[in-house]
Amino acid sequence: MRAVGLITEYNPLHNGHLYHLTQAKQRTGADCTVVVMSGNWLQRGEPAILDKWTRTQLALDAGADLVIELPVFYATQPAHLFARGGVELLTALGCDSLVFGAEHPELDFGQLMAAFPNGREAFKQYNATYATLFNAALKTATGQALTKANDMLGFCYYVANQHLGGQLKLVPIKRQGADHNDDHLTADQFASGTAIRQAARQHQWDALAPVVPAATLTQLQTQHLTQWADFWPYLHYQLLTTTVERSGQYDQMAEGLEYRLREMAQGATSFTAFLQQVKSKRYTYTRLQRVATAMLLQLTATEVQTAQAHNYVRVLGFNQTGQTYLHQVKKSLNLPLYTKINQKLRLHEMALDYRAGRVYELINGQSQDLYRRPLIKSN
Amino acid sequence: MRAVGLITEYNPLHNGHLYHLTQAKQRTGADCTVVVMSGNWLQRGEPAILDKWTRTQLALDAGADLVIELPVFYATQPAHLFARGGVELLTALGCDSLVFGAEHPELDFGQLMAAFPNGREAFKQYNATYATLFNAALKTATGQALTKANDMLGFCYYVANQHLGGQLKLVPIKRQGADHNDDHLTADQFASGTAIRQAARQHQWDALAPVVPAATLTQLQTQHLTQWADFWPYLHYQLLTTTVERSGQYDQMAEGLEYRLREMAQGATSFTAFLQQVKSKRYTYTRLQRVATAMLLQLTATEVQTAQAHNYVRVLGFNQTGQTYLHQVKKSLNLPLYTKINQKLRLHEMALDYRAGRVYELINGQSQDLYRRPLIKSN
Repeated sequence: MRAVGLITEYNPLHNGHLYHLTQAKQRTGADCTVVVMSGNWLQRGEPAILDKWTRTQLALDAGADLVIELPVFYATQPAHLFARGGVELLTALGCDSLVFGAEHPELDFGQLMAAFPNGREAFKQYNATYATLFNAALKTATGQALTKANDMLGFCYYVANQHLGGQLKLVPIKRQGADHNDDHLTADQFASGTAIRQAARQHQWDALAPVVPAATLTQLQTQHLTQWADFWPYLHYQLLTTTVERSGQYDQMAEGLEYRLREMAQGATSFTAFLQQVKSKRYTYTRLQRVATAMLLQLTATEVQTAQAHNYVRVLGFNQTGQTYLHQVKKSLNLPLYTKINQKLRLHEMALDYRAGRVYELINGQSQDLYRRPLIKSN
Repeated sequence: MRAVGLITEYNPLHNGHLYHLTQAKQRTGADCTVVVMSGNWLQRGEPAILDKWTRTQLALDAGADLVIELPVFYATQPAHLFARGGVELLTALGCDSLVFGAEHPELDFGQLMAAFPNGREAFKQYNATYATLFNAALKTATGQALTKANDMLGFCYYVANQHLGGQLKLVPIKRQGADHNDDHLTADQFASGTAIRQAARQHQWDALAPVVPAATLTQLQTQHLTQWADFWPYLHYQLLTTTVERSGQYDQMAEGLEYRLREMAQGATSFTAFLQQVKSKRYTYTRLQRVATAMLLQLTATEVQTAQAHNYVRVLGFNQTGQTYLHQVKKSLNLPLYTKINQKLRLHEMALDYRAGRVYELINGQSQDLYRRPLIKSN
């Protein structure tokens, strides 16, 4: 059996993702689709609108054969680290290709990478927005810039894959319809995640029906739609009680930002108002949201870096095809494989994911890890 | 002018406290009563039922001339440290006596202290309940034990006063009526704080009227009655996200207790249920509540010890007599005097009190420090 990999968030799963899944099989002729999906906390530093189990079920319903969780210490990171975590899992799982959406699939990532010899060094810079820093250097070297989010992510997949031995064939496909950040729905079958989440929060079910699978619509209509505002009381409390010394240890904190966070927390009355007050030219909203996530989950830079060196394959769900494939690759897997969380994993190897899940549970009320087994979809 | 000192919590102020204030003046013939009162967090590791400003007003109404806050790094400590903080403030403020309630005012504290030469050493032990440890040693040395809370506290005042040069004349008075922990009201004019708080939470106003001043009754009827349950969501969140390494740094944490707290937090659904699960023979409820307070306020042992070495006189309120007295002693004060909180104090000298106030505010909604000036009562 041959497998194609996808790296996803499914926040929530929509028609663009269905297209992605179909294309992944068509373009590669693979027998099995392996979907690496972020858990409950996402790359833009926010909670998923639906929890990871609901999104796993939607992925299986949409045709994914095997769903693997991208651990929180990769899922909430800048593009290059997010990409590294995902590519590492797909490589470990023996996939031979990675299909991803890009605004400009015609870009020659190899050429870009070759023209940018210090790419790896730039990855280590934390104090400016990674994308800004990277693009400035890229522009100097090549005269080009990667201004679109998915082009950028594609480039990061490319670099990660090269560093990991180049096992995956990278297959960019043209993203359909809306731009990643478009915030309104059009009379199209494709819409951005941002527009879909906004419409769902406003209960615009008629507008949503054409752009998401029926199963997604049902989940959006029946589940609590989690958002940052839900966690604001906890973050605010944390901001009010954490010293700047401690705060400075959180993951992705920029030098001096901890003082600004402390000051702005004093009079803040909502998460949105707080972020607006903290925002400056130095930091993007996404960066600030990621720092807020690290603070809420009390993820220190040290913890995250240590965990990143010990990635693992956490199975969230599969169908018969996925199960057969997993059985096939199990023996040669060079990362630990976890299908359920026991006492030892909870306290050690999976401690950060468990913690992230417990915080999500404070709002969601559903156990995210304890007693949970992979979802099994009958073919 | 001569001043008598009292060390109090007023949680809330009741007839026993009125008696205490009257006796303090009568027994000593002092011109001024200086009341050191805990702020929003108390010695038994719990939030005050009414905030410090409401309780200051009640104290002034009851005849206190000058009200000083016992900082949180002394107010939430075992008896010997609570006593030390209070005695230090009264000594600095030039008081010449300290009047306190005791179950057995006839006890000869000097004799007890003399019979117990290692008293100071025992004070440094954190891993057993202080009172238990102390009484075991005392019993070995003298055959006696201090089994009553206020006798014990009186002994601690005695020891602290001796260590600070013995400026205060200690005047124990017999506590009236109910025992400290009695939890029901009787047809008496005196009742315990525990019984009063319980009756207030059950809106038993008729039963309360005979045992508290009218002003206290009004406040209990109109203000939110703060309790631990209010802070449980924050504590629970903190328990779920703090590592045992970090948790082990909190003030008064016993060795190994951080692991027990983490485990019991997993399934806990309320503060009461949580404490019951954590409780064992090794730890009293009071001790556990103090640890929970330290965790909620993120007070580390290092922070608390550093702060204890830098006590200060924070004025909460006064009348004309108190103002005159304060003016008289101001020049010779050997501790810093703070009447309002500015940027520097908020971030440094008073950081722990400010933090403690901000957490209380999350429930209470009233600014506890910022923009607050001492209350002034016209005589």
